[in-house]
Amino acid sequence: MTSESDFIASLRSLATEPAARELLDDAAVLSVGDAKLVLTHDMMIEGVHFLPDDPPGDIAWKLVAVNISDLAAKGARPIGILLGYSLGRSDEWNRAFTAGLHDAADHFRVALLGGDTVAMPAGAPIALGLTAIGEAVSRRVPSRAGARAGDILWVTGSIGDKGAGLRIARGEIQGPEGLAERYRRPEPRPEAGQALAPYVNAMMDLSDGLLIDSQRLASASGLAAEIDLDCVPLSRDYVATCGDGLAERIAAATAGDDYELLFAAPPRQSDTVFTISRSMGLAFTPVGRLQPGEGISLIDCNGPVPLPDRLGYLHAAGVPA
Amino acid sequence: MTSESDFIASLRSLATEPAARELLDDAAVLSVGDAKLVLTHDMMIEGVHFLPDDPPGDIAWKLVAVNISDLAAKGARPIGILLGYSLGRSDEWNRAFTAGLHDAADHFRVALLGGDTVAMPAGAPIALGLTAIGEAVSRRVPSRAGARAGDILWVTGSIGDKGAGLRIARGEIQGPEGLAERYRRPEPRPEAGQALAPYVNAMMDLSDGLLIDSQRLASASGLAAEIDLDCVPLSRDYVATCGDGLAERIAAATAGDDYELLFAAPPRQSDTVFTISRSMGLAFTPVGRLQPGEGISLIDCNGPVPLPDRLGYLHAAGVPA
Repeated sequence: MTSESDFIASLRSLATEPAARELLDDAAVLSVGDAKLVLTHDMMIEGVHFLPDDPPGDIAWKLVAVNISDLAAKGARPIGILLGYSLGRSDEWNRAFTAGLHDAADHFRVALLGGDTVAMPAGAPIALGLTAIGEAVSRRVPSRAGARAGDILWVTGSIGDKGAGLRIARGEIQGPEGLAERYRRPEPRPEAGQALAPYVNAMMDLSDGLLIDSQRLASASGLAAEIDLDCVPLSRDYVATCGDGLAERIAAATAGDDYELLFAAPPRQSDTVFTISRSMGLAFTPVGRLQPGEGISLIDCNGPVPLPDRLGYLHAAGVPA
Repeated sequence: MTSESDFIASLRSLATEPAARELLDDAAVLSVGDAKLVLTHDMMIEGVHFLPDDPPGDIAWKLVAVNISDLAAKGARPIGILLGYSLGRSDEWNRAFTAGLHDAADHFRVALLGGDTVAMPAGAPIALGLTAIGEAVSRRVPSRAGARAGDILWVTGSIGDKGAGLRIARGEIQGPEGLAERYRRPEPRPEAGQALAPYVNAMMDLSDGLLIDSQRLASASGLAAEIDLDCVPLSRDYVATCGDGLAERIAAATAGDDYELLFAAPPRQSDTVFTISRSMGLAFTPVGRLQPGEGISLIDCNGPVPLPDRLGYLHAAGVPA
C-alpha cells in the first residue's frame, strides 16, 4: 500500500502555483490582490480519527478546530468554512453534530460558506471533510521552512494535556474532567498565530506530537532541532495526573493532538515574544533550539536523552509514527 | 433518516455571511478587496457516485469537473483545488487516480493547492472531497435566484449525452464510444460561464437533470418554468443511439450528469447570447421560459405534456429524485 508521503510526493508536480508551497506546508497561501488568503482542508474518518461512540458535537468541534489550527499557524484570521458531510446514523447524530458545529463556528467566529452532503452506503464509516479559509494578517506568512540556525523553538500553552485527556476519556487513568474536556474540545491559537506571524521565522501547529513536529519544522528548514525536555511546559493538571518525571515528559512530547503553535524565532525577538505572551495571558515557552545539521536530539538537566521509539502519532495513516 | 435538505436547512443559521448565499446556490461568493472569490466543495463516494470498477483516472477527472462546473455557473475563472483523498486499494489505483488528476488539472488549468490524505478502515468505501476556488470575472456573479418573469431559459451544449453514455459504458445499450467517453470525462463550461455572467439574470450548472434543475432555478427565483421538449438540444450521436421521440427527449432531460450550464436571460439579451455562442463555437439553445407561478410544466408541438414520475437524479442521496 502506498504511504501518505509517497502519494503526496506523486502529487507534487500538480502543485504548480507558488500558493501550494509545494504541498510541504500546513496550508496554501493564495495572493488575491493585496490580500493573502490561507486555505486548508482536513478530513476526519470514523474509525481512524474518531470512534463510533464519540459525541458527535465533539467530532464537529474537532473538525473545525484542526483546520482553524492550520490557519493559526499561518497567522490567518479565520473567515469561513466549507463542510463535506456524510449524513450520520440517525437524526439524533446529525442534530448533535450540527449543535457542535454551531458551538465551534460561534467560538472561532467563522461562517459556514457552503459544502456538500452525501449519504454513505449502509455500514460505511462516516467521512467528514472541512475546508477553512482565512486571511493572513501579516505580509509575512510564516511557513515551516523559514527557520535559521540559532533560532529558538517555542511552544504556546502547555503540552500533553490532550494525550492525558484521551486516556482519562477512555477510562485508562483517573484524572480531572478538565483534561478530558481539553481533549474533546481542543482550543487552537488563531489570535496567538496572528500576533506572532510578523516576528517568527517559521511556524506550524502541533498535531502529531512536539517531537515529531519539531523534527518536521527542522527538516523543512534544513536544520537540526534540539529539545530540552526539562523546558516542555506541563500544566498543573497534567503534573498532578501523570507526574513530571522524564518518562512523563516524553509521553507529553509525543502524545499529539495539542493544537498549540510551534515557532522558531531569532533570540533578538525573545522580548517581543514575551510581550505578546503577557498581553494575551497565554504562556509561550522556549523548548529548544535550531542548529546546523539534521534530525532531532533531546537533552535534560542530566545531559543527552536517547530518542524514544516513536516521536509522535501519524494520524493520517492511523498508526504511531 | 434525515434527508439532505432537512440537514442543510438545519445548517442555514450557521451561514451568517452573505458569501454563503444562504446555502441556496452552487457555490459561495466571497469578497476579498475588489475581487470576488468563488468557492465550492463536492464529495464523491464509492458505491454512491462511482462504482468500484470505474477507472480511477475517470473518477479523478469527474471529481475535478463537477467542481469546475460549479465555478462555471458563477462565471468564475478556476484558480486551484484542494483534494481530500482516501488512499485507494492499491498503488496502481492511486497511480491511475493521480494520472487522471493530472489530466484534469492540465485541461482546466487549475493547480493543486493542498488538501489531506487519509487511510480508510479496511473494507470502507473510498471517500473523496474536492474544494475548488476561482475568481469571478464579472462584477455580477449570477445566482440561481435572480431570474425574472419573461426570461428565456437556455442551455449550453447538448443534453442527455452523459445519460446515454452511462448506459453504453454499462453495456445496457449499444452506441458510439464517444458518448461513453463524454460520460466518463465530462466537459464543464467555465469559458461559457465567464462570457455569459454579465448578461444573465440567473445561472446554475446541470448536474441532476434539465427538468429538476430548471425547477430548482425557477423555485429559487420565485417563478414557474415551462420547458419546450421539442427544443431540448440532442446531439447527433444521441439521436442515432436513442432516437428523438418524446420518451427519448424526456429521458435526456431527466438523466443528469450533463454539466452544461442552465441560464435565464431577458429576451433583449438574446442577440448577445447568440453572438457569444457563435464566438465560442458552442451551441446555446433556448429551451423554455420563466413565468409567474411555481413548479415546472412541459410542452411540445402537440401542447402540454404530463410531468414524468421523476424529474432527475438526486445524487446526494443516491436515489432518483
